[in-house]
Amino acid sequence: MSVSFNLFCKHFFGSINLKLKSFNISSRFVTFSERKNMGETSIDTLKDLATQIRISSIESTSAASSGHPTTCSSCAEILSVLFFRVMRYKACAPREPSNDRFVLSKGHAAPALYAVWAEIGVVPLEELKNLRHIDSDLEGHPTPRLSFVDVGTGSLGQGLAIANGMAYIGKYVEEAPYRIYCLTGDGECAEGSIWESINFASYYKLDNLCLIIDVNRFGQAGPTMFDHDLESYRVRLEAFGFNTIVIDGHNVEELISAFNCAENTKDKPAVIIAKTMKGKNFPGIENEGNWHGKPLGDKTEEVLKHLKSMLKGESGKFDFTIPSPNCKIPATNISNVTLSKPPDYKKGEKVATRSAYGTALVKMVETNQNIMAFDGDMRNSTYSEYLLKASPKNFVECFIAEQNMIGVAIGACTRNRCIAFASTFAAFLTRSFDQIRMAAISQSNVNICGSHCGISIGHDGPSQMALEDLAMFRSIPTCTVFYPSDAVATERAVELAANTKGITYIRTTRAATTVFYDNDQKFEIGKANIILQSDCDKVLVVAACVTIQEALEAAKSLASAGIGLRIMDPFTIKPIDKEGIIKHANDVNGRVLVVEDHYAEGGIGEAVLSALAGEKNVTVKLASVKEVPRSGDTASVLKRYGIDSCSIIGYVQELLQCGC
Amino acid sequence: MSVSFNLFCKHFFGSINLKLKSFNISSRFVTFSERKNMGETSIDTLKDLATQIRISSIESTSAASSGHPTTCSSCAEILSVLFFRVMRYKACAPREPSNDRFVLSKGHAAPALYAVWAEIGVVPLEELKNLRHIDSDLEGHPTPRLSFVDVGTGSLGQGLAIANGMAYIGKYVEEAPYRIYCLTGDGECAEGSIWESINFASYYKLDNLCLIIDVNRFGQAGPTMFDHDLESYRVRLEAFGFNTIVIDGHNVEELISAFNCAENTKDKPAVIIAKTMKGKNFPGIENEGNWHGKPLGDKTEEVLKHLKSMLKGESGKFDFTIPSPNCKIPATNISNVTLSKPPDYKKGEKVATRSAYGTALVKMVETNQNIMAFDGDMRNSTYSEYLLKASPKNFVECFIAEQNMIGVAIGACTRNRCIAFASTFAAFLTRSFDQIRMAAISQSNVNICGSHCGISIGHDGPSQMALEDLAMFRSIPTCTVFYPSDAVATERAVELAANTKGITYIRTTRAATTVFYDNDQKFEIGKANIILQSDCDKVLVVAACVTIQEALEAAKSLASAGIGLRIMDPFTIKPIDKEGIIKHANDVNGRVLVVEDHYAEGGIGEAVLSALAGEKNVTVKLASVKEVPRSGDTASVLKRYGIDSCSIIGYVQELLQCGC
Repeated sequence: MSVSFNLFCKHFFGSINLKLKSFNISSRFVTFSERKNMGETSIDTLKDLATQIRISSIESTSAASSGHPTTCSSCAEILSVLFFRVMRYKACAPREPSNDRFVLSKGHAAPALYAVWAEIGVVPLEELKNLRHIDSDLEGHPTPRLSFVDVGTGSLGQGLAIANGMAYIGKYVEEAPYRIYCLTGDGECAEGSIWESINFASYYKLDNLCLIIDVNRFGQAGPTMFDHDLESYRVRLEAFGFNTIVIDGHNVEELISAFNCAENTKDKPAVIIAKTMKGKNFPGIENEGNWHGKPLGDKTEEVLKHLKSMLKGESGKFDFTIPSPNCKIPATNISNVTLSKPPDYKKGEKVATRSAYGTALVKMVETNQNIMAFDGDMRNSTYSEYLLKASPKNFVECFIAEQNMIGVAIGACTRNRCIAFASTFAAFLTRSFDQIRMAAISQSNVNICGSHCGISIGHDGPSQMALEDLAMFRSIPTCTVFYPSDAVATERAVELAANTKGITYIRTTRAATTVFYDNDQKFEIGKANIILQSDCDKVLVVAACVTIQEALEAAKSLASAGIGLRIMDPFTIKPIDKEGIIKHANDVNGRVLVVEDHYAEGGIGEAVLSALAGEKNVTVKLASVKEVPRSGDTASVLKRYGIDSCSIIGYVQELLQCGC
Repeated sequence: MSVSFNLFCKHFFGSINLKLKSFNISSRFVTFSERKNMGETSIDTLKDLATQIRISSIESTSAASSGHPTTCSSCAEILSVLFFRVMRYKACAPREPSNDRFVLSKGHAAPALYAVWAEIGVVPLEELKNLRHIDSDLEGHPTPRLSFVDVGTGSLGQGLAIANGMAYIGKYVEEAPYRIYCLTGDGECAEGSIWESINFASYYKLDNLCLIIDVNRFGQAGPTMFDHDLESYRVRLEAFGFNTIVIDGHNVEELISAFNCAENTKDKPAVIIAKTMKGKNFPGIENEGNWHGKPLGDKTEEVLKHLKSMLKGESGKFDFTIPSPNCKIPATNISNVTLSKPPDYKKGEKVATRSAYGTALVKMVETNQNIMAFDGDMRNSTYSEYLLKASPKNFVECFIAEQNMIGVAIGACTRNRCIAFASTFAAFLTRSFDQIRMAAISQSNVNICGSHCGISIGHDGPSQMALEDLAMFRSIPTCTVFYPSDAVATERAVELAANTKGITYIRTTRAATTVFYDNDQKFEIGKANIILQSDCDKVLVVAACVTIQEALEAAKSLASAGIGLRIMDPFTIKPIDKEGIIKHANDVNGRVLVVEDHYAEGGIGEAVLSALAGEKNVTVKLASVKEVPRSGDTASVLKRYGIDSCSIIGYVQELLQCGC
C-alpha cells in the first residue's frame, strides 16, 4: 500500500471536517455525527479502546514477525485516553495547525499508534497487517510518511525536544491554545537529551506541554536504572521545575484526572509519571523480563483470546468522541523568502562569513516574520545575535544544549509554522548528529549554521575546530550543504536555505575574509563559480573561503612562472557541481587539486572525487588536514597542516611534475 | 617549545620522587624537602597561590591576545585548594596510577591549570607566555600532549563522563583509594551529557568522585539559565542522588571543609556547588557581563598591579606541600592481547558478525583480565552480554546514555588501566560523535563497536539503520575502522583492535551471514583480501559483509555469461588497502564497482575513490543507499535500494557497456 493515507483521508473526510465542532467516528464504517452537546467517550469505551490497541498491536506484530507488542501494551490506556478523550484535533486533518500535537518519543510503540489511527479511521484496518512491509507506510518506527506523524522517532530521548519546539511556537509565537503531548519510555529517561529538554521546558514555563513517562520498568536488555521506583522520577522532575503527577498508568479514571490536572497547570510544564506493566493483560507475559521487541509467537492466540474476552463493547463499533480544536490558526507564509535588500559590501573588504549570516537573518525577518533563530549560548560568535537585537521575538536562546536546540528547531518548523535556523560552533553540532540524522527521517526543513569551521580558527585549538562537519552533513540524505566563500555568497546561501526543502547546512568561518564577489552575483544550489581563470590554466583548484584566499595568493606567485590556476568555488558541497567540475578538470588536462579546511574523509575532496568517479584521465590531489591539529595563529596552522598558499604551490608543482 | 614537559619533568624529578612520602616544591627553584610529619599548605599560601593563578592566567592570555582569564579567575581558589592541599599525587609523575585524578571539564580555564603546574614546577614559568603558540603544548584548551592532562577538554559537558570511567575503575576494578575530581562550569550543566553522567555516578555510588561546579553565573553570550541561584543546582543534584555541598567558592577555608566532607561521603558521589565570580578580584571586571573569552587588554597592567598587591608571600617562593598518594597500584598488562583460542566456525554456516564480537570479547578476557566492556542497554543485541555472562566484573552497563557510555569507556582506559570496548547500535553512536571527536584529541585507545549497521537490519526501519557511521568514524584522524565480513574476520578484528593504538571502530551486522574464511585466515590492518578471482575478471567489486554475500551471488550468475568478478573484502575501511585496490583495479582494466550498505558520502566508495585519486584509466561506480530507506525485510530493502545481487549485475553490465 504505497498510496498515501493523506489521499485516503482526503477522500473520506476532505469536505466535511470544517463543518464539525466535534465529531464522532465509528471507524469501521466511517460514519460521522455532529453533536450539539459535546459528548465524551465513556470510561468503558476508553477501556475497550485500550484493549483494542493491545489486540491490534499483537495482530500486526505477529503478522510482521517482529515489533514490540509488550511496549505497546504498557501505554494502551495512555493512548486511548489521550486520543479519544483528552486531545482536541481534527481527525481527518491530522496536521491541521490548530490540533493538539502528539509526539511518540518511544517510537517502538508504533503499532499502538497505528492501532489508534485505525480506530479513528485514518489507517485502513486491513493495512495493520502490513506493518513493516516494504510497501507500507506503517514502518517499524513512525515516520512522517504517515499524515498523523510529525517527526520520525525511534532513536530514544529526542521526542521532548521536538515537543518543546512545538510548545514554544504555540505559547510564544502563535499564542494559540493547542497543547502538546509527548510520550516517553522510562528507559529513555537515561538519555541526557531528555534532561536538556526538561530544563528548556521548565525555563520557558511551557505550560502547554505535558510529558507522559510510561514507567514499565524495562529497557531492552533488562530493568531500567530505577525499575518501578516512581519516586526517583518524581523528585528529579520536580527538582527540574515540572508539576509532577504520579498515577497508575492503566487506570483510565486516574489518567483523565491527571491530564485535567496537567491542563490546569500554569507557568510550568506538567509530567504524568505513569506506573505501567510491560505486556499488561498478556497472561504469563505481563511484567516479565525478556519480552522486549518480541512478537508473541505461539502465545499469540491465547493472549488474543484473553484480550477479546475483556471487551465490553463490540470490536469495531466503539462509540467515541474526539473533541475539536478550540482555535483557528491562520496560514503561515514560509515560502519565497527574500533578503530585504541585496548584499552591500565593497570588494576587497574583510568580513567574516559568520557575520554575514547574522546580517542575512535580519534582512530576511524584515520581509518574513516567520524566520526564527535558535542559538546555543554562542549568539555573539555565530552572530545570530544580530537577529536577537533586531527582533527579539524571532530569537530563542537554547543555552549550551545542542541536542535540545536542534530538536526545538525541528519541532518549531513542523507543520510549516516557521522557518527555523539553528546555529552554534560547527564543532559542537557533532553533539546533535543523531538529532540531525533523525531530522532527515522526519522530512524536516530545519536550517543549521555551524560557525568557526576548520583549523583557521587558530588559537582556541582542536576542540573548537570543526573538521568533520562536512562529512557529517554530507552523509545526511536530505541535506543541502552550503560553504559560502565570502559575505556576499553567505547572504545568498542563507536566503537560498530559507527557501530550500530538506535540511540545509551553512558552514561559516570565524576569520574576516576578503569579499570577492560583486553584490549582484547570482548563486545557485549545485552551481560552482570560477573565481580565476585564463586560457593557459594548468591546474583546477577547488577551494572554499579561507582556502580560496590562499589559492588566490598561490595563483599570484605561480602566474609569474607562467603557471595558471583555475580556481573554483563550489558554493554548495552537496549537491556539488559535477558538470562544472568535469568540464573544468578536462579544460586543464585533468589536473585537479582540492584544498580544504577539513579532514580529508568525507569533505570537499571526496565530493569532488565522487563527481569525477566516472572520468578517466583525471588525477586528483587532496590537500586537507590529516592529523589532530594544534593551537596557533591562523597563518601558522594553515601552514603547518598544509593548506596555505605555499603548500598549494607545492602541490601544484607536484601535479605538474608527475607528468599528469 | 616542542620538547616535551615529560622530559623536563624526568630531568628534574626523575630519580627522587619514589623516596618521598610527601614533598614540598618551591617551584621557581625546584627544591625538595622531605617531611616526616605531613605538612599542609597554609591558608595564606593557598590564597596567595590562587592570586598567583590569576596573575599567571592574565599574563599568559595577554601575551597570547586570546583566552579566558575571567574564567580562570572564578576557579582560582578551587584549583589552589585542590592541587596544593587536597589532592594526593606525585607531582613529578602526573600520570602515576596511584595519583588522585583531576579532569578540567571547563577546558577553557586551561591557563589556570597551566599556572598550577607552573607553580608545581612541571611547566617552566617562562613557557606560560607561549600559551596558544603553534610550537607550545600549552594549547587553548588542554590536551594530553601535556603530561598532566589525561584527556582533551573544551567541548563542554564531557569531563564528568571521563571522571566516571576513572572512578568506576578505581572503585570496582582496582579497589584503590585514589580519588577523582572533576571541575565543571555552570553553563555546561545545561548539557544533557552531564546529567547522564550524574545518573551514572549516583547509580554506581561512586563515592570516590567529587564534582565541583564553578557557578560564576555567566556562559559565553550572557547569564546562564540559573544565574547565581545555587539552590537550582542543589535541588537537581540532590534529586539525582548526590551529596550536595554549597559554598563560597572563593573562601579557602570553606573549600577545604567541603573537600573534606566530600571525601567522607559514603555510597554516593559528592558535589561542591561553589558560588564564584567571573573575573574575581579584577577591579571593574568582576561579575560583569561581556568578559567571556577576552584577555584584559588595556586593563591588564592595572589588574595585575592590584593582584600583586594582594600577595602576602613572595611570588615564586610559595611554601606548599603536596600530599603523596597513599597506595601503590600494580602495573596493568594491556599489550599483546590474544584470543584464548582461534575462531572455530564451519565454512558456509551462518553466523552474525555481532555474535562473533561477543565471542571474541570472552576469548580475550580469558587471556587478559583487563578487557572491559561498556554497553548501552543493548547487550543482548550487540552480544556484549556474552562477556557479562562469562565475567560480570569485566562488564559495565551504562543504560541508554551513549554520550556518557563513550566517556566512561574513555575515562576507564586513561593511564592504560584497561582495554575498553564500548558497544551499542551503530546508529546510536551518532549520539556520541562529539565525544568520539574529542577522544581523538584525548589520544584515547578506546575501542567502539557498532552493531545493526545498514539497511540490512530491515524491519526496524531507518531510525535504527546506521548509514553514516563509516563517514563518522573515517573522519576521526586517529581511528582504525574495521568492517569485518564474516565471523572469522570479526574475531580477528576485535583482537587487532585490542592491540591497536588510537580509537578503533568495529562495524557489525545484525543478520547471520555466511562464514567464508578459513579459521586460520590471517588478517592485517590495511590489507584487503580477495575473496574471488580468476584470470578473466572484468570488474573489481569492493564489498563488505552483506554486500559480499550479494556480490558472490552476482558473480555466480555473471560467470555463466563469461564475466568474471574479482571480489575484494577491504577488512579495514581506514586505513584502506590503497596498494591492493590500485593493483586489482589495473588488473581488470580499471573497472571498479563499490557496493556498500551505507550512504555514498564518506563510506567505502569514497575511501576507494581516495585510494584511486592519483590513478588515471580507472572508472569507479558507487552502489550505495541514496535516500532515507523504509522498513522491510532484508531482501526487499537490499533490492529496493540497489545493493542486492541483481543490482550488482546491472551495475557490472553498465560498467562493461560504457566502454570503460
